[in-house]
Amino acid sequence: MRMYDLILKKRNGEELSREEINFFIENYTNGNIPDYQVSALMMAIFFKKMNSRETADLTMAIVNSGDILDLSAIEGIKVDKHSTGGVGDTTTLVLGPMVAALGVPVAKMSGRGLGHTGGTIDKLESFNGFSVEMTNEKFIGNVNTIKLAVGAQTGDLAPADKKLYSLRDVTATVDNVSLIASSIMSKKIAAGADCIVLDVKVGEGAFMKTPEAAFELAHEMVSIGNNVNRETIAIISDMDQPLGFAVGNALEVKEAIDTLKGKGPKDLFELCLTLGSNMVLLAKKANSAEEAREMLLETIESGSALNKLKEFIAAQGGDSSYIDDVEKFPKAQYVVPVISDDEGYVTKIHAENIGLIAMELGAGRATKESVIDLAVGIVLNKKRGDSVLKGDVLAYVHANDMEKANEAVRKIQKNYVIKSQYSENIPLIYGVVTK
Amino acid sequence: MRMYDLILKKRNGEELSREEINFFIENYTNGNIPDYQVSALMMAIFFKKMNSRETADLTMAIVNSGDILDLSAIEGIKVDKHSTGGVGDTTTLVLGPMVAALGVPVAKMSGRGLGHTGGTIDKLESFNGFSVEMTNEKFIGNVNTIKLAVGAQTGDLAPADKKLYSLRDVTATVDNVSLIASSIMSKKIAAGADCIVLDVKVGEGAFMKTPEAAFELAHEMVSIGNNVNRETIAIISDMDQPLGFAVGNALEVKEAIDTLKGKGPKDLFELCLTLGSNMVLLAKKANSAEEAREMLLETIESGSALNKLKEFIAAQGGDSSYIDDVEKFPKAQYVVPVISDDEGYVTKIHAENIGLIAMELGAGRATKESVIDLAVGIVLNKKRGDSVLKGDVLAYVHANDMEKANEAVRKIQKNYVIKSQYSENIPLIYGVVTK
Repeated sequence: MRMYDLILKKRNGEELSREEINFFIENYTNGNIPDYQVSALMMAIFFKKMNSRETADLTMAIVNSGDILDLSAIEGIKVDKHSTGGVGDTTTLVLGPMVAALGVPVAKMSGRGLGHTGGTIDKLESFNGFSVEMTNEKFIGNVNTIKLAVGAQTGDLAPADKKLYSLRDVTATVDNVSLIASSIMSKKIAAGADCIVLDVKVGEGAFMKTPEAAFELAHEMVSIGNNVNRETIAIISDMDQPLGFAVGNALEVKEAIDTLKGKGPKDLFELCLTLGSNMVLLAKKANSAEEAREMLLETIESGSALNKLKEFIAAQGGDSSYIDDVEKFPKAQYVVPVISDDEGYVTKIHAENIGLIAMELGAGRATKESVIDLAVGIVLNKKRGDSVLKGDVLAYVHANDMEKANEAVRKIQKNYVIKSQYSENIPLIYGVVTK
Repeated sequence: MRMYDLILKKRNGEELSREEINFFIENYTNGNIPDYQVSALMMAIFFKKMNSRETADLTMAIVNSGDILDLSAIEGIKVDKHSTGGVGDTTTLVLGPMVAALGVPVAKMSGRGLGHTGGTIDKLESFNGFSVEMTNEKFIGNVNTIKLAVGAQTGDLAPADKKLYSLRDVTATVDNVSLIASSIMSKKIAAGADCIVLDVKVGEGAFMKTPEAAFELAHEMVSIGNNVNRETIAIISDMDQPLGFAVGNALEVKEAIDTLKGKGPKDLFELCLTLGSNMVLLAKKANSAEEAREMLLETIESGSALNKLKEFIAAQGGDSSYIDDVEKFPKAQYVVPVISDDEGYVTKIHAENIGLIAMELGAGRATKESVIDLAVGIVLNKKRGDSVLKGDVLAYVHANDMEKANEAVRKIQKNYVIKSQYSENIPLIYGVVTK
């Protein structure tokens, strides 16, 4: 088999066989196929697409390029949740305790990564003493007893994806739905998920800018899941403005705690109920999404979800008294209001820019070497559709540097669009894709 | 400027500016742009094409990537002829003396290269003593006095083309007319041509398999020539069977001499008249192609072309007495006839396979290290449309190894298609493209 022939075949619009896809991924991973042939194939795929069989085969080839986590010692159906990424997305911190409280095992392997704010591990480190360092036995033991554990990703999961993504990133071949879908799904499958709930974000602050593109990606990923026996459901949700109010590490943890106490932002809570009910459903802990939703609401009302969070934080060495006294979380030196110059209705909050402003404040990593400041960030006070008077507070900047704070204030003002009328009706949930 | 943006632009079907094309070629040549970005761009060009402005700019960027031969010391308009490659193509050896006899300067820089038979230099070395080793002054002096000289290519001409071609060859991105045309034209322009006559071969033994593809390539190359002030004419000619009868080095030289004596194969002679009259026309030595053709016929009838060959061979140290006594040329030990098992009409001679059989006999180089046997090759006795009886001789194999000879005989038989009827009418010249 020769890589040349695979490129030619795809260039001519033909289908690649499973054997050909395995040959390509195996030999690319071990360095036998050079980047320049792979980038040519990626560009041919950009133009000629892959069908769902090819996409599923590519996904499994990527999974098999490295380690696959063995979570078989965990009782029950492991349901993983994945978001395609947005701004101020605190769902994981809310969802984990909620579904764990219903007995759904949540075995989360997380990283630190780059982005507007830190990864789940960074956020959880806002709790004094919290650590993800533990043996594999302890990790699995915690999931079996508490139903919730967060560990640092170990092993070399989907190395072919890392290589492929780096190459696609510099050769203008990222924008292909099969390649995006296989990249996401291969990592989830390698991380040991039995079932997957996907939160596909759509809007200005998301990778997918239009509902059409988001639904296409959702269908592709669900199709992969079905093809490789991982039941998968995708929710398409709004990311045209930040989710909830908080953007920042400790700020988002506090918002998650508020939500578990039943007083969080409406959009964040609603999205958690939608994602969570699908997780509970896939884990076979409920017979319908409606039943699952009722059960999840009960975890808030009874306080069982909040207790689950305490139990989980304590089990990993964290000071769970922060949950009852959120004043203990790291706090920024300055909290500066962003004042409105205009009056009318908020018609748009440029989500991606809000994320970048939070990163510039120190909430996220621009490069791997960046050090995160857990205390800083942005808390929105007005959201899309809200009425605003001159002098109203649009948002609060939490900063440890006055110059950066002023810069952030100026930029946030520019990223709020205020008009005399607001008539748009952007839904929080665009739809659910199950096949 | 970033290579990424160029790939994205072309991927999205946009036009690349001259500055962008120069940036890409300069930085690829000096190693600042990696192969994997270039192969992605090549694949994007395969799908999204380049317009004639982009193609001309690419050609000149490739020309400027290395040395450009300075032939300004040669008097008159330098017209170069280029063939896209076929089997048994002896035109250069016939054309050179014919047009030189009319005062058209022929300053040929040639190589040895790979192929079915050797390069022009290999063939000319069939004359005892002939050499291409000479100073630049002697080379130019010879062209000015005799009007015909063949030298070994010096200097680093169009290095970007070598790099690009090697990459395209392994990434299935050869088949794009702009890329093929710019590759050919850049080398001719870097070699100092003022005007170019192209012989675009079409048929099974050629790179272009259909007349449509050949005309498309011809138009693209003529368009480049016009865009960069090198007057260019392209002839589209048949390569569905070998040209003339001889395939092999000394065998082709003898055929060229026969043709200059007025007794060569009709197709070879006719093609030489067509190509030659366009060369004479571009060199402004005649007012019309018809006049040029008459002048060329006169060089055969008067013997001036044959004398020009003698003069040229002698000037480069060769024994020109071979021309009057062709028995002096290297001769193969065995001459084995290929006998027909069938009767009817020759409807096809698989040209490319005939070339490969000649190469296996030792007439050409399969790798750079191969040693050429100047004596061996194939002389066809029957061509397309000829009637054949059982027992007739289809061709003669000239070999220095009886085993190889028998192998060649068997293979040649298989590559003659003989049927009871022949009604096709494949022209020798499909057309002339001047703009």
